[in-house]
Amino acid sequence: MIAPMNLEFVFHPRSVAVVGASSSFGKWGQMIFSNIVAGHFPGKIFPVNPREEMIFGLPVFRRIQDIPEPVDLAIICTPAETVVGVLEGCGEKGVKAAVVITSGFGETGEAGKVMERGIVALCRSKGILLVGPNTMGILCPRSGLFATGTHTRPRKGKVAFVSQSGNLGNQLIHWAEQQGVGVSLFVGSGNEAMITCPDYLEYLEQDSDTRIIILYIENINRGKRFFEVAKRVNRVKPVILLKGGRTEAGSLASASHTGAMGGNLTIFRAACRQAGLLEVYVPSELLDLSAGFSSLPLPKGNRVGIVTLGGGWGVVTADECNERGLLVPRLPDRIIESIGRYLPPFWSKSNPVDLVGTQNPDAPLVAVEELLKWDGVDAVIGLGIVGRIELLRLLIQSTREVDRSKPSELLDQMENTLREYEERYATRIVEFMEVYEKPVLGVSLTMTEKGTVRPIPGKRYDAVFYQTPESAVNVLSRMCRYASFQNAVAP
Amino acid sequence: MIAPMNLEFVFHPRSVAVVGASSSFGKWGQMIFSNIVAGHFPGKIFPVNPREEMIFGLPVFRRIQDIPEPVDLAIICTPAETVVGVLEGCGEKGVKAAVVITSGFGETGEAGKVMERGIVALCRSKGILLVGPNTMGILCPRSGLFATGTHTRPRKGKVAFVSQSGNLGNQLIHWAEQQGVGVSLFVGSGNEAMITCPDYLEYLEQDSDTRIIILYIENINRGKRFFEVAKRVNRVKPVILLKGGRTEAGSLASASHTGAMGGNLTIFRAACRQAGLLEVYVPSELLDLSAGFSSLPLPKGNRVGIVTLGGGWGVVTADECNERGLLVPRLPDRIIESIGRYLPPFWSKSNPVDLVGTQNPDAPLVAVEELLKWDGVDAVIGLGIVGRIELLRLLIQSTREVDRSKPSELLDQMENTLREYEERYATRIVEFMEVYEKPVLGVSLTMTEKGTVRPIPGKRYDAVFYQTPESAVNVLSRMCRYASFQNAVAP
Repeated sequence: MIAPMNLEFVFHPRSVAVVGASSSFGKWGQMIFSNIVAGHFPGKIFPVNPREEMIFGLPVFRRIQDIPEPVDLAIICTPAETVVGVLEGCGEKGVKAAVVITSGFGETGEAGKVMERGIVALCRSKGILLVGPNTMGILCPRSGLFATGTHTRPRKGKVAFVSQSGNLGNQLIHWAEQQGVGVSLFVGSGNEAMITCPDYLEYLEQDSDTRIIILYIENINRGKRFFEVAKRVNRVKPVILLKGGRTEAGSLASASHTGAMGGNLTIFRAACRQAGLLEVYVPSELLDLSAGFSSLPLPKGNRVGIVTLGGGWGVVTADECNERGLLVPRLPDRIIESIGRYLPPFWSKSNPVDLVGTQNPDAPLVAVEELLKWDGVDAVIGLGIVGRIELLRLLIQSTREVDRSKPSELLDQMENTLREYEERYATRIVEFMEVYEKPVLGVSLTMTEKGTVRPIPGKRYDAVFYQTPESAVNVLSRMCRYASFQNAVAP
Repeated sequence: MIAPMNLEFVFHPRSVAVVGASSSFGKWGQMIFSNIVAGHFPGKIFPVNPREEMIFGLPVFRRIQDIPEPVDLAIICTPAETVVGVLEGCGEKGVKAAVVITSGFGETGEAGKVMERGIVALCRSKGILLVGPNTMGILCPRSGLFATGTHTRPRKGKVAFVSQSGNLGNQLIHWAEQQGVGVSLFVGSGNEAMITCPDYLEYLEQDSDTRIIILYIENINRGKRFFEVAKRVNRVKPVILLKGGRTEAGSLASASHTGAMGGNLTIFRAACRQAGLLEVYVPSELLDLSAGFSSLPLPKGNRVGIVTLGGGWGVVTADECNERGLLVPRLPDRIIESIGRYLPPFWSKSNPVDLVGTQNPDAPLVAVEELLKWDGVDAVIGLGIVGRIELLRLLIQSTREVDRSKPSELLDQMENTLREYEERYATRIVEFMEVYEKPVLGVSLTMTEKGTVRPIPGKRYDAVFYQTPESAVNVLSRMCRYASFQNAVAP
């Protein structure tokens, strides 16, 4: 076995040069360079461009060789025909790694393929690691390095994203940022001329920041190696992947996009199954699974307790559970009794536990904890408990408008009380997960500004609130499948 | 055939009394009454409560009989044991219709069922239409009547929602409001003691405001009549339904929720298929389909043109299309040539049309229109064209931070230019739909504050931008299926 490539210089460089850095708004050299500067990269940053003197207050170098200090990483945004020359300069300078943003290589046809093989040979001879070409960049929150064209800066976390499509990958990272999913690193792997998907996997296997791996793949060049590595990595870190080009139409689209044909889907699927990889079918699932796998303990079985503020949502969630292979067990009398003490007599007395809209603040927490304590369930889904505040705000606004007798402070206080309650609930849920080592998945039922993942400082797990029950149920069913795969391969 | 119930007094009353109206924040009588007042109901509003004098500046009546003017609709929020008395008062007063919010009837067991039969008999004898009991209310934007506990007020439009679950229905209406879906009416049908789902369907069949019907159903009492009516209505107005209680777990949950067992799923599904009804599996699909069916022309076939700003999204969308029975045809040379004039030489030259991130503002519109003109496609999906502004804003923000040389007005202007472009694009798309009578589905790829549906004043159709390609593809495939069903049953 060859030692994995050391990609430390790609993701944790001490200094970065941007070749083709520019102050022209909207050019790649401006988008990447301004992102690195605005993202407060803590190392040295060197713009390189023979036609500019100063960019964003930093002195510009004509050539990378002119930089008087060591350069770990070069990010190259200059036209395709100039890239060989730039890489020769990188070699002269002793640059350790290069990210070639530039497109116009292997994806464009035979001439591009020849040029691409040329830059790979050059980089190999100079000992330069090559990301791309034809990529939209990389980012690594722990390094403070945000070198993508999309100016979205997710928080530091456990999820690594490797995407063969830059635009899709960048958008996913933007979703991750919006949903509060913590990211260890992102790489648009582009044409993978030198560093390929299995190389990234081997690096991530050893990267202690990364706990979950997300792949968007259109093409696998050496399938055998990919599946060998992915299978090994997946035993310790879930590998979740979306395959683009599954169908005839998708495969043709992919051919014109990355210049690569998709290969045989049946063989691909069988290999995924055998390796226990989690294949998803749409990009949003990648995000949902990222949130769950990175924030919650794995379930030990497929029995679910459901707690809901309203009956209808309990019904559709129970249906979703059954349809995705999860069980919704009947409750023993003992638990019905304990929960019932906090609820009006007409509550459901069954699983789903329908809290019948109770205003008793203890009831949801008691119900969730009673279910977690019971060895008859492996996970709990809580619906509508966090998220109520969005609807309360509307009621408060109407009341302000129509009820002059109600002191404004009283209404403010009601909103604050519920906000504090929801925060306390989220914290308690995370504490429960630490105590009982069972996942609790929240469903907010509302489009909230707060993201899906809400980290609680100092805790091992995060609170997670999906917008819809189908997202929560899908994630839980995937976590169950992964957990049982992990048990099956455990030594 | 019995004439359909005249529900005008339910949805278009000239005057409304709220029995149990209250100023106690959070009580049902406060939530419903404050919503009606804050929603600016244009007719007369009468609060009824023997223990209050004045609520929100309106004089309170001790009993409904004491109101000196005619009352079309009574909304009843008082405890279950008082409802008979209140309804007797309604009869005496000549009230035309009553919405009984109160729970504690048929859903609670045998005693409740007896009480429920009692109020039905009473209402029949007095000629009162009865909505509920055990409902979270009704709303009708055209009437300016918002009588739900949830203070969300969707715009006037074509979609009618009938929901046996109040909490689920109210949340759906909230989503509809957030996503810009126009609503003709909503009714939480509750226990359907008198007015049942087929009655609402017959009313909606004749209601000229309603063009699309959304149902959330847990239980169908007289299946034969339901399917007869639904089949007939569905020929002219799509009937989209979600059945709660499809599985054992869901059915048990439903039993404790509405007091009704779900019945046989196989028979239900066969009847749906035979009637051509659109069955969906999760609540969010109801919203997605509402947006599409109410805003777009029906496709005449299943051939899709895809236009995308970035390759990866084209690939996943093409995959989704093929997996849901839609075709992505190859383009004739003629169209490749026309579109190619607006794009750099390395564009995809195929369907999906990958605009390779072009900044040429004409290119997306030319591509969409060339596809629409061609008789080889029946619909177009456009990805990432509207929605770019969200990412541009991030770039502008960074540029402001790092580039002191860039005048702030210049950056403002860039944002404005793109905003105006996106608005112009949305308008053009709607104009194209009028000219070519083919649907164009947008995908914004981003969580935008703007909703899914963007109405263009004076136009027959609306611009629609889903957040994800899977939503757009799912809706389009359902619209195709409905269109072919409609053709098959056309006289």
